[in-house]
Amino acid sequence: MITAFRKTAETFATGAKTLEQSYFVSPEIFAEEQEKIFSKQWVLVGHQSQIAKAGDYFVAKVASESLIIVRDKGGEVHGFYNVCRHRGTRLREDRNGHLSAIQCPYHAWTYGLDGRLLGAPHMDEVPGFDKADYPLHAVNLASWEGFTFVSLAESPTPLEEWFAPLAGKFSHWNLPKLCSAKRIEYDVRANWKLIFENYSECYHCPGVHPALSKLTPYDAAENDLATGPFLGGFMPITKGNSLTMSGNACALPVGDINAEDFHRVFYYSIFPNMLLSMHPDYVMVHQLWPRSPERTRILCDWFFHPGAFERADFHPNDAIEFWDMTNKQDWHVCELSQQGIASRSYQPGPYSPRESIPAAWDREYLRYVS
Amino acid sequence: MITAFRKTAETFATGAKTLEQSYFVSPEIFAEEQEKIFSKQWVLVGHQSQIAKAGDYFVAKVASESLIIVRDKGGEVHGFYNVCRHRGTRLREDRNGHLSAIQCPYHAWTYGLDGRLLGAPHMDEVPGFDKADYPLHAVNLASWEGFTFVSLAESPTPLEEWFAPLAGKFSHWNLPKLCSAKRIEYDVRANWKLIFENYSECYHCPGVHPALSKLTPYDAAENDLATGPFLGGFMPITKGNSLTMSGNACALPVGDINAEDFHRVFYYSIFPNMLLSMHPDYVMVHQLWPRSPERTRILCDWFFHPGAFERADFHPNDAIEFWDMTNKQDWHVCELSQQGIASRSYQPGPYSPRESIPAAWDREYLRYVS
Amino acid sequence: MITAFRKTAETFATGAKTLEQSYFVSPEIFAEEQEKIFSKQWVLVGHQSQIAKAGDYFVAKVASESLIIVRDKGGEVHGFYNVCRHRGTRLREDRNGHLSAIQCPYHAWTYGLDGRLLGAPHMDEVPGFDKADYPLHAVNLASWEGFTFVSLAESPTPLEEWFAPLAGKFSHWNLPKLCSAKRIEYDVRANWKLIFENYSECYHCPGVHPALSKLTPYDAAENDLATGPFLGGFMPITKGNSLTMSGNACALPVGDINAEDFHRVFYYSIFPNMLLSMHPDYVMVHQLWPRSPERTRILCDWFFHPGAFERADFHPNDAIEFWDMTNKQDWHVCELSQQGIASRSYQPGPYSPRESIPAAWDREYLRYVS
Repeated sequence: MITAFRKTAETFATGAKTLEQSYFVSPEIFAEEQEKIFSKQWVLVGHQSQIAKAGDYFVAKVASESLIIVRDKGGEVHGFYNVCRHRGTRLREDRNGHLSAIQCPYHAWTYGLDGRLLGAPHMDEVPGFDKADYPLHAVNLASWEGFTFVSLAESPTPLEEWFAPLAGKFSHWNLPKLCSAKRIEYDVRANWKLIFENYSECYHCPGVHPALSKLTPYDAAENDLATGPFLGGFMPITKGNSLTMSGNACALPVGDINAEDFHRVFYYSIFPNMLLSMHPDYVMVHQLWPRSPERTRILCDWFFHPGAFERADFHPNDAIEFWDMTNKQDWHVCELSQQGIASRSYQPGPYSPRESIPAAWDREYLRYVS
Repeated sequence: MITAFRKTAETFATGAKTLEQSYFVSPEIFAEEQEKIFSKQWVLVGHQSQIAKAGDYFVAKVASESLIIVRDKGGEVHGFYNVCRHRGTRLREDRNGHLSAIQCPYHAWTYGLDGRLLGAPHMDEVPGFDKADYPLHAVNLASWEGFTFVSLAESPTPLEEWFAPLAGKFSHWNLPKLCSAKRIEYDVRANWKLIFENYSECYHCPGVHPALSKLTPYDAAENDLATGPFLGGFMPITKGNSLTMSGNACALPVGDINAEDFHRVFYYSIFPNMLLSMHPDYVMVHQLWPRSPERTRILCDWFFHPGAFERADFHPNDAIEFWDMTNKQDWHVCELSQQGIASRSYQPGPYSPRESIPAAWDREYLRYVS
Repeated sequence: MITAFRKTAETFATGAKTLEQSYFVSPEIFAEEQEKIFSKQWVLVGHQSQIAKAGDYFVAKVASESLIIVRDKGGEVHGFYNVCRHRGTRLREDRNGHLSAIQCPYHAWTYGLDGRLLGAPHMDEVPGFDKADYPLHAVNLASWEGFTFVSLAESPTPLEEWFAPLAGKFSHWNLPKLCSAKRIEYDVRANWKLIFENYSECYHCPGVHPALSKLTPYDAAENDLATGPFLGGFMPITKGNSLTMSGNACALPVGDINAEDFHRVFYYSIFPNMLLSMHPDYVMVHQLWPRSPERTRILCDWFFHPGAFERADFHPNDAIEFWDMTNKQDWHVCELSQQGIASRSYQPGPYSPRESIPAAWDREYLRYVS
């Protein structure tokens, strides 16, 4: 939703155009993205508040892989492939829950929350069988600002190194302590990159988002991150106190927000699958999961201050309804773009000066895919 | 529905057999057909009565392409790819309607009914940007007997040249002035060529169409077009006055029908996607749209004299119900053929003398596909 | 459901592991199986009791082919491709019925129950056309213990030669005379081989089948066929008299069962698509039909003594409900295995000593597929 910037000459590469058709429809490029981006980079899978207690777990799907993200008895969080080492059976079917151990539903092989094989009936009769050889397969897992990221790469860049450019930038937002009040899942018939390109400009706001445009002027964005994997900035809230149906704040401030930021919304895209939208009173986070060249699963969470939940002035639906409406407006135009881009008549079109962030996102993306 | 002809020796190529299996099931041949036939030849998309006034439009789908067919303010009809020149967005989602300009729902770029880009917010800030460089992409469009045809080819044979063999042949049928009272869409699980082969003979009528067979004898066809892209002739109506549920005429005569033709039905196939069935009191037109090797979308319209609609003796459902029933009988046996032809045991089978027109259609088809 | 055996050293190949991932997910291997196994070997399609009278027929689907299995007027059973020799039309759409001749629904070509073309309207006008040249295409068909098998191979091994190792083994079970009281069809989202592997061990019974495990101890199997295309043995019934919801026998004994076998269930897998489960009072037969690498259609019949049906002590649902419940428990864990095996983390896992029959089945399977 962020328009480009104010000083055209500085950052707008004159003549930037949209990506070629194949990036939106080709199964080969989709497979390349899945391999080089979603199976290699750090991708967002959730927030530590989802697995607050030992034994809490949730299941995430990354690059067609089902993963169990679980907090062990020592408080450490692990990520495992959701696959038994015996005959390959899916271990957990539910989306989340609480466990004392991970037992396979087929032949009852049992694993600890740290992945070690603890029990395997009758396998002691097999000469040379050693349980230590059959732990669950692990994936790399790390945390940034309370958000949980995994990487299927063997030896990924350490997460703190990847996020070094953002060190401390969001600390006053209190992100590690927030809790989600609601998750909505969307199934969008559009390429995942169209979602990023849509999020990264407000040139479309007047026609697509009449309600949003009343609260925040489409052409008033200021971007402080204009190149690289992290992009975005803020837009002023010029009417009301937050982006809600009522225009009022709907909860306690999420963190130590300064006076100026009380009338700003911060929008950042975190490559490759996170959209981070920080309002004074809540934080919205989108996870993007490509399903095919022409289809994306989106998980959207609304996070609030943990102290907000029990108070009389907590009205989370005021924010959730506002963005659920706005999200659907966005997904619809992304679906229309997907349809048109598949035409033989499609040619890359010219980005306007208000679309410098989509152009920057495209450039970053092209560093990963041939 | 037309049986072959009367004098076997003249026109029946002894030993003609049905097409090889691959023509009905191969994705490669389907792609070749889409490229060499449906993306090159003139294909029927509608009738001028559908867009009678300036600003009227309808959307057609040709070879996976969505097209906007629109009448401009000067009365001229245009065909455009339904794709914005900015970021490729689908412009119109509805099937038809009325417009004063074509505005993109995403970033509000606006085009005239003649395709010129009229407005593009903020693009004047881009050095060197010229609206004249970004009109909607056009397709070739022309009219024959009031029917609208498009060609995606760059430089197709002029439509009047293509239809020269039929010049004047149907003029007394008044086709340009007729209006459709009803459109029914069918989704048929059969290759599009099976629909043509089915339409082109009445050898199947005794078993498949008991009601039709009572009104018009299956073996009494006389064909006057027996080779080339336009095939067919007439069958006598020997009981009742038209092909309707009641057997009565259901509307004013469509044109200047002579006495002899008042008891005839004329059936013509127009390569590659039109079936034209002319009764004394109505004209039925099928559009055939291949969706996959094993699936075809069919649009069927029933056209009547424009003066018929307001009269007390106008009973269009009498005709529509008759042919909707008969159509479904045909689609069903086409679907059964599709199923059997996919068998490894299928071999081209021998056409009977009553199937010379399907055999002629196959020969014409093979001129386009390797 | 059969656990491996009692004397590990004799028959368990130490170190046997599950099959590689590709055998469960690869379209190429699936195509190879369809060609080399399901289009060449003898496969079960039904039982002679389904077509007791002349003119009775049923339709079977083998390796994507629809076949008509019909008893002719002389009592002989034939198998034909369900495809007209004229234009390839599917002849019979229903699953079973009774016929005096086989007439094509399209152009009324008519075949005898022995496959000869009897009538073809107007074809006598075609010089040189001879009905004797256009019989229905036949498939090889033969019977074993009352069960009907077909082979799409041109010259298959004679069925009696294939079944020679089992000659007389099941004769006291009276299989040719039994009749099915019920058929249930299942659509399972798992590779067909996972169904065999599941059927062939009871290592999973404690966790997956609590009701079954109460009647028959999971670790008490004795296998008498431990290598080759026919595998299995028996398990004792230690509580109650049969595998039923009530634990009681639900019908007359199926055959001449000796005292010892009155408390045994015999489980045999017959390569490549039959599971034969013989209880004292009923016989359950599964047909397995691979639909894709990740999907299998299963037909399950419950057969009883023909004299049982009219008696007051006939309670077939007592058995059917028991196994329908148990079947669904099995299909569910097979589906979970399919999901996990598709993971990049899957590696062949170690079979336990209680899984020697699945291991033997895998070895037999690998003789057919490269």
